[in-house]
Amino acid sequence: MKPGNKVFMRLGHVQALNWLAGYRKDLLSGDLMAGFVVAIVLLPQAMAYAMLAGLPPQIGLYSCILPILCYAVFGTSRTLAVGPVGLMSLMVGAAIAELNLEADPQIYFVGVGLALLSGAFLLLMYVMRFGTIVNFISHPVLSGFTSAGALLIAISQLKHLLGLNTTKGEHLLETLVNLFGAIPTANPVTAALGIAGIGVVVGVKLPAIDRFLVSRLPSIFYAVVSKSGPLIAVILGTYLVWKFELSGSSGVSIVGSIPSGLPRLSYPRLDWVLIEQLLPMSVVIAVVGFLESVSVAKALASRKRQRIDANQELLALGCANLGAAFSGGYPVAGGLGRSMVNFNSGANTPLASVITASLIAVALMFLTPLLYFLPRAVLAAIIIVAVAGLMDIKTLKHVWSYDKTEAASFIATFLVVLSVGIEWGILFGALLSIGFHLHRSSKPHIAVVGRVGDTEHFRNVERHPVKTCAHVIAIRVDENLYFANTGYLEDYVMGLIADNPQAEHLVLVCSAVNEIDSSALELLDTLVERLAYAGLTLHLAEVKGPVMDQLKKTPFLQRIKPGQVFLSTHQAMQKLDCVD
Amino acid sequence: MKPGNKVFMRLGHVQALNWLAGYRKDLLSGDLMAGFVVAIVLLPQAMAYAMLAGLPPQIGLYSCILPILCYAVFGTSRTLAVGPVGLMSLMVGAAIAELNLEADPQIYFVGVGLALLSGAFLLLMYVMRFGTIVNFISHPVLSGFTSAGALLIAISQLKHLLGLNTTKGEHLLETLVNLFGAIPTANPVTAALGIAGIGVVVGVKLPAIDRFLVSRLPSIFYAVVSKSGPLIAVILGTYLVWKFELSGSSGVSIVGSIPSGLPRLSYPRLDWVLIEQLLPMSVVIAVVGFLESVSVAKALASRKRQRIDANQELLALGCANLGAAFSGGYPVAGGLGRSMVNFNSGANTPLASVITASLIAVALMFLTPLLYFLPRAVLAAIIIVAVAGLMDIKTLKHVWSYDKTEAASFIATFLVVLSVGIEWGILFGALLSIGFHLHRSSKPHIAVVGRVGDTEHFRNVERHPVKTCAHVIAIRVDENLYFANTGYLEDYVMGLIADNPQAEHLVLVCSAVNEIDSSALELLDTLVERLAYAGLTLHLAEVKGPVMDQLKKTPFLQRIKPGQVFLSTHQAMQKLDCVD
Repeated sequence: MKPGNKVFMRLGHVQALNWLAGYRKDLLSGDLMAGFVVAIVLLPQAMAYAMLAGLPPQIGLYSCILPILCYAVFGTSRTLAVGPVGLMSLMVGAAIAELNLEADPQIYFVGVGLALLSGAFLLLMYVMRFGTIVNFISHPVLSGFTSAGALLIAISQLKHLLGLNTTKGEHLLETLVNLFGAIPTANPVTAALGIAGIGVVVGVKLPAIDRFLVSRLPSIFYAVVSKSGPLIAVILGTYLVWKFELSGSSGVSIVGSIPSGLPRLSYPRLDWVLIEQLLPMSVVIAVVGFLESVSVAKALASRKRQRIDANQELLALGCANLGAAFSGGYPVAGGLGRSMVNFNSGANTPLASVITASLIAVALMFLTPLLYFLPRAVLAAIIIVAVAGLMDIKTLKHVWSYDKTEAASFIATFLVVLSVGIEWGILFGALLSIGFHLHRSSKPHIAVVGRVGDTEHFRNVERHPVKTCAHVIAIRVDENLYFANTGYLEDYVMGLIADNPQAEHLVLVCSAVNEIDSSALELLDTLVERLAYAGLTLHLAEVKGPVMDQLKKTPFLQRIKPGQVFLSTHQAMQKLDCVD
Repeated sequence: MKPGNKVFMRLGHVQALNWLAGYRKDLLSGDLMAGFVVAIVLLPQAMAYAMLAGLPPQIGLYSCILPILCYAVFGTSRTLAVGPVGLMSLMVGAAIAELNLEADPQIYFVGVGLALLSGAFLLLMYVMRFGTIVNFISHPVLSGFTSAGALLIAISQLKHLLGLNTTKGEHLLETLVNLFGAIPTANPVTAALGIAGIGVVVGVKLPAIDRFLVSRLPSIFYAVVSKSGPLIAVILGTYLVWKFELSGSSGVSIVGSIPSGLPRLSYPRLDWVLIEQLLPMSVVIAVVGFLESVSVAKALASRKRQRIDANQELLALGCANLGAAFSGGYPVAGGLGRSMVNFNSGANTPLASVITASLIAVALMFLTPLLYFLPRAVLAAIIIVAVAGLMDIKTLKHVWSYDKTEAASFIATFLVVLSVGIEWGILFGALLSIGFHLHRSSKPHIAVVGRVGDTEHFRNVERHPVKTCAHVIAIRVDENLYFANTGYLEDYVMGLIADNPQAEHLVLVCSAVNEIDSSALELLDTLVERLAYAGLTLHLAEVKGPVMDQLKKTPFLQRIKPGQVFLSTHQAMQKLDCVD
């Protein structure tokens, strides 16, 4: 049993009971501060991501109220900040584009429908305790997927950033050609606002500015201002458009009127045709969102020696997405950027998130008229800066120098996402990395071992100066014995005894064997017989406890006789007169 | 490098040069005898299998000439007997049934087309050196597949055996219902011939009869007669039908006229529509035939300390199937039953197979008129006896007691073959066993280890009375560290340190770790940092040569400092003041 399982069971599924019961006054100031700062980051980001998904901006804000509260009740992370995220917004956008929907109510149903289906799928995975399924996406695959997604997002925003008059192509190359061809049509005012927006968002983070802010501002203001780049860009951009009437003759695209007030709670009525169309994408969205959330949550939890339970996260994220579906939002997950902001601003408990959600609700009730003149170019700038950090070339470099097949998984995933589609990329990458793993384990490293000096240690004859003797061959298989490598082991052993006519004993050192499946057991049975036919006796050494338990259930330990199972290689060699 | 590869390379691809060059006179008598006996077995079997596939009987005989010669030239097995086999015939029959073909020329093209495509696919696998791909079919899956196939074959023959007037249903259950409903319609003469046929084929093998034959016949005749059950049944059945004109008023179904003479060599002209329809089935036929052939060849080769090269077998079987396609045959493989006959009758080299092929050719030229009155019920009897041995309940029992998940793979494969289709069964089974394997390796056995007495051995604290100390925890992970289990290891370690607040050092014993992939390396990087944050130092011990080589390529060995990589667990414990 995994240590800690008991703790989770005792706490039950409602994590809020846990953190509320243990709440202390001294945690409050950190939670208040973090809740406020995250709201400042989230307000423009949520609108920007909704726009990326092809949805009206208020949908992004709707996704920041009920989902955040749901996660605060069920989530095991104390500091994960849930809400719209880039990759999922991109996938929602792809689903909308694929269905060729134009009218507002239909688009709205796609967002709600994907949230509903993803939430339901996450809960299904929770019921089946499938939290570990995400382990089968390797790090290079995830990284290749994220990088390609970030690139696609950035490309999709260039149009809005520069006010280009272009259309999306059939495939990426056509889109790029259209994009570059349209550069002369750029709206200079829009482009200026967009590029200035990037300047503001990046600028606040620059070391020189940061040092300046630290030295001049009281620490409480510094914490707010240093995270306010996006909000400052929004305020400045909106002010400029309003003041100089840029949305008129200059043709700057603006957000326009956002309905004010909280989202209405309603049961999303979807027809079966739409559900069928959305199903595949909703599964990918659920898996990707879960992956991103859990990896972020784990990274943050470890810093405070807290724990994340992957299965409980399925419940929490499933509820958060259902919350989004029932309050007119679209799929949500825990985002890396704003969770870091939450953590670094001092969040101690999910109360910080509750405060964030309340502030967003207040903004929806009272501030939407102020956002009328917000230029879309500034939102595009915010998105581009947010996803730029996801382009993970560093990982590719590392992986390339470490293992070429894993680098191939990264590159293949990256290319499939760009050329075929987002949802295919992650599936292809996952299958590829599983395939590489199986291929590797089907050709295990096998070493003939000999004695190191006069010690009890036996090591690879090709790597160490060791002593061996002609009538006993000891081999160590550095892999579990299972169906995929029995053929290789069989060929190896038969080749070995053909090349060593003097051998009378073969000792199979099982120190690295954690599993012998029935195919491998049958091979061992066969080897006993074949080696006997060729005048050799098979022995085992260093068989582990769990493997020995398995073998005891079978007649193999009788069949191996006169061969024996030795506790150590040294004992085997002593008994077989190979060492003294 | 695999021992023995050099030998194969030196010999080149034409294995015949090899066995012909080394041919000695004393090998001849064994080869002559075996060639003759196998021809006697093969003649009725080939016709019976062709009938099972829904093809005219001569197609089965055509598949026994050129394919056998091709295999003799390229095959690495000295004793494998190639020709039509049961499972592949069943699959060809399924393809014919699915395409709803009735007319002779079209049916003929299905057989030829499948042989052509399977042969081409095998050669493609050969070029890609994919011989090891068959390793991914585990033994329980193969066994479940074969058992279900044998059951389907036997059921399909009951109709012919008993002369029933029934039709194949939409699914197995319907077929069985139809079959039992039709039992009253059985043709009594046909049924008598069929059951008598089974009696003769089985009877010759009975211990009592066998002892009788051994005692009364000179050994050379014994060898022939003891394998002649099917031929005796054919001769007796044919004689009875001819003598008493049973094919007339009694309505016994007979083989009828078989065109006499050798097959014409011709390039099979197939249209693309047919190729597209046959492609999926031809891939399954190629894989199944290859699997069966290689496993039989390996079993026989080991008895004489010979070797089978799986990749070279791809070439040989690919050529054999192309040979079948170009001479009007249908897909072939090395069959278990007749290869055993070949081996036991004294075959020393593929010359035996050349003799078999020549005798079949002679039969085609001169004996076909004699087979006119051969009753189909006798051929059905021969098939039923041949496949009865493939029903592998023993394996299911063994596997059930050894490992329930593997038994589940057997049963799932068996049921999918029966309910969905032959080609889906093997695919489903293969994916299932890979899934189980991955699932198992994603939750590795991890043991906290302590010192056994005053030795240098460290074992699981839960299985052995060992000494530990509070400030050092040593854990041994009994599995490779790769993407599928990094999540589990991470949770385990973080849980462990949360439960052991006094710990200052964590030693990861890597004696069972044969691979650390980049996802796992990243986890180790993360663990170093997280443990340091929690006041612990991570160390490694017993890292293997190949793994250490990999780690040296990365900055990890710098990052782990002040943690160290120790040669043995004992050294680590000494250095960390846990033992003296």
